[in-house]
Amino acid sequence: MEGINRNERVDYLFHTDLKIIQSDDLFPFSLDSVLLARFVYVPIQHGCLVDLCTGNGVIPFLLSQRTKGEITGIEIQPEVCHLAERGALANHLESRVRFICGDAKDLPEKIGRHSCDVVTCNPPYFNKQAARDLKLNPHLAIARHEILITLSDVLETAGKLLKQGGKFALVHRPERLVEILDGMRQEGMEPKRLQFVHPRMGKPANMVLVEGTRGGRPGITVLPPIAVYGPDGQYTEDVWPKK
Amino acid sequence: MEGINRNERVDYLFHTDLKIIQSDDLFPFSLDSVLLARFVYVPIQHGCLVDLCTGNGVIPFLLSQRTKGEITGIEIQPEVCHLAERGALANHLESRVRFICGDAKDLPEKIGRHSCDVVTCNPPYFNKQAARDLKLNPHLAIARHEILITLSDVLETAGKLLKQGGKFALVHRPERLVEILDGMRQEGMEPKRLQFVHPRMGKPANMVLVEGTRGGRPGITVLPPIAVYGPDGQYTEDVWPKK
Repeated sequence: MEGINRNERVDYLFHTDLKIIQSDDLFPFSLDSVLLARFVYVPIQHGCLVDLCTGNGVIPFLLSQRTKGEITGIEIQPEVCHLAERGALANHLESRVRFICGDAKDLPEKIGRHSCDVVTCNPPYFNKQAARDLKLNPHLAIARHEILITLSDVLETAGKLLKQGGKFALVHRPERLVEILDGMRQEGMEPKRLQFVHPRMGKPANMVLVEGTRGGRPGITVLPPIAVYGPDGQYTEDVWPKK
Repeated sequence: MEGINRNERVDYLFHTDLKIIQSDDLFPFSLDSVLLARFVYVPIQHGCLVDLCTGNGVIPFLLSQRTKGEITGIEIQPEVCHLAERGALANHLESRVRFICGDAKDLPEKIGRHSCDVVTCNPPYFNKQAARDLKLNPHLAIARHEILITLSDVLETAGKLLKQGGKFALVHRPERLVEILDGMRQEGMEPKRLQFVHPRMGKPANMVLVEGTRGGRPGITVLPPIAVYGPDGQYTEDVWPKK
């Protein structure tokens, strides 16, 4: 592939022909995003899908394999958003996947309130203070810590973007589960599906996938848990399915 | 054992010398109660523990193996409460385990608000209407359906009973998770530990264990899931541990 800069690399996404451009100066995509892109409900034939805090675009690229709908990713860091835009070209997805470089919180006013069928987000997980303590590089700090966007901003934005009956799917840390479920309800999205991810069976969960429906009826399903590593120390089929 | 009536039987509880008196005319204890009694935090040396909707007393009897504290069970159905009282005698636990025949909602006024270290409950899981539809026997209907007590009654009662820092542990259906977590917070109990029970690995959860702390700080741990049956169709060690 042309136009790869120093410190960048092109990886292929799990069992797909999708290319993802990563930069060592920024931050890589994570398993969290891959699991979220598999977990979320998507309409197959058409629809408006939005990925907030999209990073290098891994979620939109994976969603493009599951739907013919139009997918928009929004990313606030210009250098990172540029990787996503170049990824869309590399994957010949520019007609169906677009990226906006900007603040997710402004998106409802940009593309219209209650205009979306699906909103996904792999947001920053950790609070602001911890980023200072850890002295992270600023790109990673913004991606992982609630510096430019918080959980409640994400939920408010998703609630504004979704149509009635539209789906919101989030990946986050289980520690914040109560806040997530509370906040979704406050923004009019009823939690409907939950799935916990455990590093191994027998260990506490370190990730949770949540899906809610705007205007949905109460009642949630807790799906079978996912274990990332098996007893052999290899990825399980939950994470790395055989073709 | 003396004094067993027709239609009654005495069972031994999982790997203990505890006897439990069951009646075919009423309803048996369930795995739900056994898992709850194992899941909940208990102070070892002393303390006030309360089990709401105690049925034939299975939770107090199991808790008595884990703590030297004083345990009170409350049960609204006199016939069922009488089984529990006889069970306490049969197990020689009458000095540490007492049963009150009455309405759990009245307990805070009876024994004093904010006087308890631990409150447990395996409440009715289902709504009132379903009991009518199913034409259940009235004892079973009261135990399983929200006829005499609702989830929000249980949470309100637990909040009134607990001391600051006291623990509340509940077993319920995962469908009601959002309502449970919301309601606990409203009653001043912060959810701190969650564990899902799946009939088999690979199936959605059909039970959830939740523990909260009165006045606790936000942040929840999701424990490793429990599978009831293994691939061989037998109880797993999670449920029926080897001695």
